[in-house]
Amino acid sequence: MRSPQHVSAATPPIAGAGQELHNFPTNQWWVAALREEVQPGRLLERRLLGKSVVLYRTTEGKAVALENRCPHRAAPLSLGTVVGDRVMCGYHGFQYGPDGRCAHIPTQSAIPSSAVVRSFPVRELGPLVWVWTGAPELAQHSEPPCPQWLLDDATWALIGEAMPLKANYMSLKENVLDLTHFGYVHASTFKITDWVNPPEVEVTDSSVKFIQRFENSVCPVMYLELSGLGPERRVNRYSWGVSLSPAIHEACMEMTVLETAPGERAEYRSRFAHITTPASSRETHYWWFTGNDYGQNNAQGQETLKELIRVAFREDKVMLECIQAAADADPDYLNYREVSVAADRPGLQARRILMRLVEQEKAQPGT
Amino acid sequence: MRSPQHVSAATPPIAGAGQELHNFPTNQWWVAALREEVQPGRLLERRLLGKSVVLYRTTEGKAVALENRCPHRAAPLSLGTVVGDRVMCGYHGFQYGPDGRCAHIPTQSAIPSSAVVRSFPVRELGPLVWVWTGAPELAQHSEPPCPQWLLDDATWALIGEAMPLKANYMSLKENVLDLTHFGYVHASTFKITDWVNPPEVEVTDSSVKFIQRFENSVCPVMYLELSGLGPERRVNRYSWGVSLSPAIHEACMEMTVLETAPGERAEYRSRFAHITTPASSRETHYWWFTGNDYGQNNAQGQETLKELIRVAFREDKVMLECIQAAADADPDYLNYREVSVAADRPGLQARRILMRLVEQEKAQPGT
Amino acid sequence: MRSPQHVSAATPPIAGAGQELHNFPTNQWWVAALREEVQPGRLLERRLLGKSVVLYRTTEGKAVALENRCPHRAAPLSLGTVVGDRVMCGYHGFQYGPDGRCAHIPTQSAIPSSAVVRSFPVRELGPLVWVWTGAPELAQHSEPPCPQWLLDDATWALIGEAMPLKANYMSLKENVLDLTHFGYVHASTFKITDWVNPPEVEVTDSSVKFIQRFENSVCPVMYLELSGLGPERRVNRYSWGVSLSPAIHEACMEMTVLETAPGERAEYRSRFAHITTPASSRETHYWWFTGNDYGQNNAQGQETLKELIRVAFREDKVMLECIQAAADADPDYLNYREVSVAADRPGLQARRILMRLVEQEKAQPGT
Repeated sequence: MRSPQHVSAATPPIAGAGQELHNFPTNQWWVAALREEVQPGRLLERRLLGKSVVLYRTTEGKAVALENRCPHRAAPLSLGTVVGDRVMCGYHGFQYGPDGRCAHIPTQSAIPSSAVVRSFPVRELGPLVWVWTGAPELAQHSEPPCPQWLLDDATWALIGEAMPLKANYMSLKENVLDLTHFGYVHASTFKITDWVNPPEVEVTDSSVKFIQRFENSVCPVMYLELSGLGPERRVNRYSWGVSLSPAIHEACMEMTVLETAPGERAEYRSRFAHITTPASSRETHYWWFTGNDYGQNNAQGQETLKELIRVAFREDKVMLECIQAAADADPDYLNYREVSVAADRPGLQARRILMRLVEQEKAQPGT
Repeated sequence: MRSPQHVSAATPPIAGAGQELHNFPTNQWWVAALREEVQPGRLLERRLLGKSVVLYRTTEGKAVALENRCPHRAAPLSLGTVVGDRVMCGYHGFQYGPDGRCAHIPTQSAIPSSAVVRSFPVRELGPLVWVWTGAPELAQHSEPPCPQWLLDDATWALIGEAMPLKANYMSLKENVLDLTHFGYVHASTFKITDWVNPPEVEVTDSSVKFIQRFENSVCPVMYLELSGLGPERRVNRYSWGVSLSPAIHEACMEMTVLETAPGERAEYRSRFAHITTPASSRETHYWWFTGNDYGQNNAQGQETLKELIRVAFREDKVMLECIQAAADADPDYLNYREVSVAADRPGLQARRILMRLVEQEKAQPGT
Repeated sequence: MRSPQHVSAATPPIAGAGQELHNFPTNQWWVAALREEVQPGRLLERRLLGKSVVLYRTTEGKAVALENRCPHRAAPLSLGTVVGDRVMCGYHGFQYGPDGRCAHIPTQSAIPSSAVVRSFPVRELGPLVWVWTGAPELAQHSEPPCPQWLLDDATWALIGEAMPLKANYMSLKENVLDLTHFGYVHASTFKITDWVNPPEVEVTDSSVKFIQRFENSVCPVMYLELSGLGPERRVNRYSWGVSLSPAIHEACMEMTVLETAPGERAEYRSRFAHITTPASSRETHYWWFTGNDYGQNNAQGQETLKELIRVAFREDKVMLECIQAAADADPDYLNYREVSVAADRPGLQARRILMRLVEQEKAQPGT
């Protein structure tokens, strides 16, 4: 294995055979699990940023995230059991509390002060369990970048699911920051073929937003059933996407129907979230969510939409995993020159922000 | 792959991703196979301490162990055939005798003196074939550390089997040197829950022994059928375990029944052997044997005992393999600080002896 | 992974665990595919000398070979589609022509001059598609070393097929340069047991030829049906084999029947080609072909011959793959001393020629 590569703003989000690419900052809130995955009395193992973490709930229902490695003889704590508010190691019965401190050793009363596992700050918001993977004291100055609509199922009729990805998380983020791939990757599913111009771009210190407007267009196939609009109806479509943080990308699609009949609804709004947590530099926990403000009472239409999105997002998954696999087979991968075009601006800006964060952390390893 | 790590007495017996851990001394007798596995006319391939070895029998029935690599064009000799006392390579027909010297080349009469494979000293004792993997001249000063009871099936009613292990061999040795894991790993199988105190420990230059006494206890579930003792009968249990060498751990469990009726048997003795041969630093050939002096005429009871032990030892196998797999996924593994407690003393002492042997061999590579 | 090893003429064609062995010169014609594999409208991915290449046909039917990696965002072009004479990337729709230059970007009219993939010179000869993997300007001074009989199915009644090999290509070349393995590897298939003497050898700067004569012998089992000769008929057999280039080995077997009846046929000629293209240093695209001048009208006899050769060549495949696998498991592999005998002369000469080519290319990386 080669040493971790120096990564610069120009570094592509995929590394070749024998190369590591540490392009994930740790002082961030990342989604560790869906809330429903962390069940009372159960232990959930999850690899986050290369490290194994165990999640469980206390008797009061509070989610806890601990380093998944007993400091005694290195057994994964996830092989143990939940005992009250603690996790008990399945090898020799050592117990650890929510703060990570060892609270019980069966064979002696003295507990070494070094018998402690790392405890990660946790926040539960809507359907998501967020974990802070960096210096714990920095967590309190920051809240998970979770859009409000994700907390409001009643208004937004949420659907979504996990779609694990064998590729670097940044390749998914760049994918959703450049939707000119619609006409190729999703030609036979979404059938949106007018995404042919580079977008407007707005950049801040920590986020990148693209904006795209389609005037006098039609309702996309995916929303025909749910909106009840006919395929001949003319609409203006307004889309944007924003990388809120390395952990989450939010997107919007709004339709305004042209020439509405009196009393007819004119506005149809959708939101998307693309949530990406690196398991390793080659594997990503990816969850997608979408919500819309017109599907609340149409379970069948919501199910049709979910299935279409699932099929289409699998097209992205296949593409990104093939790119990762091709890189994994090629030791020269990082030596290739990458050609970028105007439509890549949002992705390149996001990459730059990301690498700045990674490099800042390298320069201040104490934080 | 990183260079082999420097290993010290404090080095845990598991190495992380990309790390090698050479914690096995070569100037030792190791078990290569069960005697019944080396059959006349057959070639048995086995990986010992990272090297492939081929075993076979001469016409007189003597077991031979040779390096499994033809020096001509590197074919595994185990793909060949036994021809009299020799093994014949299956590629070009070169033949090698029990001393490893090439004795026949089909295409010419001259035999290069360099056409020789390594021949390993072999001893067959009871059910086991032992191989000396170090400097051959040192083998004659040493005999395999095989307990007498393993050679005496008539008295000890032996049972046992192979249980290949995807973990470093030393993790199994430490497992059997600290039986305080019984209450957790084997809670639902052995159901021995009184192993809660650190043991007495006796250490010599080359062995570690723990001793544990349980006064006024009961007969363990695993021996109820074979001993015919009722679950209410009170017994004193006397247990010890000793790491005889890196290759083998011997253990004892003796019960003395309290308040016996006149003429009733009072003493019930069992022995165990845990035999561990590194295939590599991450894979172990593990064989377990047990014998007892009261099961000779109870085939059904012996079978019940064997099945219970098999199920319980698979619990150890799962735990140790999960620990190894977690380490294999973590390049930082050897940087973790390990917390030890009093009950770890026998394991830590065994580790120290082992690492002393490894370091002595490094300092004297000629031997 | 260790750095690429220095390879010398004495370097065996197999490298051990963690070792790379770059023993393939690039300024060569290599067979990339069978002609019938490159179909109109389809994209064929093939790994050649460690690099992924995509093959397709233009509207005029000309075969094209391009680097299989879009320079934009690294998608394998083989996931895309053929559009006229171009390949279109399946991710964002960039199009590349037969010369490798980007000819269309959907989102902008300006095409960066760096948007180009490597285009490999191609020649189609008989059943084979040859690709030049080195400096393109050198291709024109060289033609694929394809024997004439491979282009003349009418005379030579060709049969053959692909037999992918998980081993370094040179191990197959050395296998067919030393047929003294017949009596061992093919003892029960070809049953040719008289290949027991080192051959005559003729060496030029770029090729090695062995010659072997068997006087007053019999017709090999494999040709009995096709020739109609009885097993008692005496023949002189004349065999040679020549490594024409790293990519191809040609061989000959001619029988002259002794004591023919008036008007009876006396001469029976066969040819063989062993075509080897490294996919990586551990995997080889291997195709074998054979032709003979007496089987044109005997489809059943040709089929019998093909099946026997297939079974026998699988014996070589098993042996070579086991040797490779044994090396792959042994980090010390290249440190072993190799013992050679007189029968190895052709193989060793071929190895020397090969390594001279590799070292010349290293010394002149510009070519």
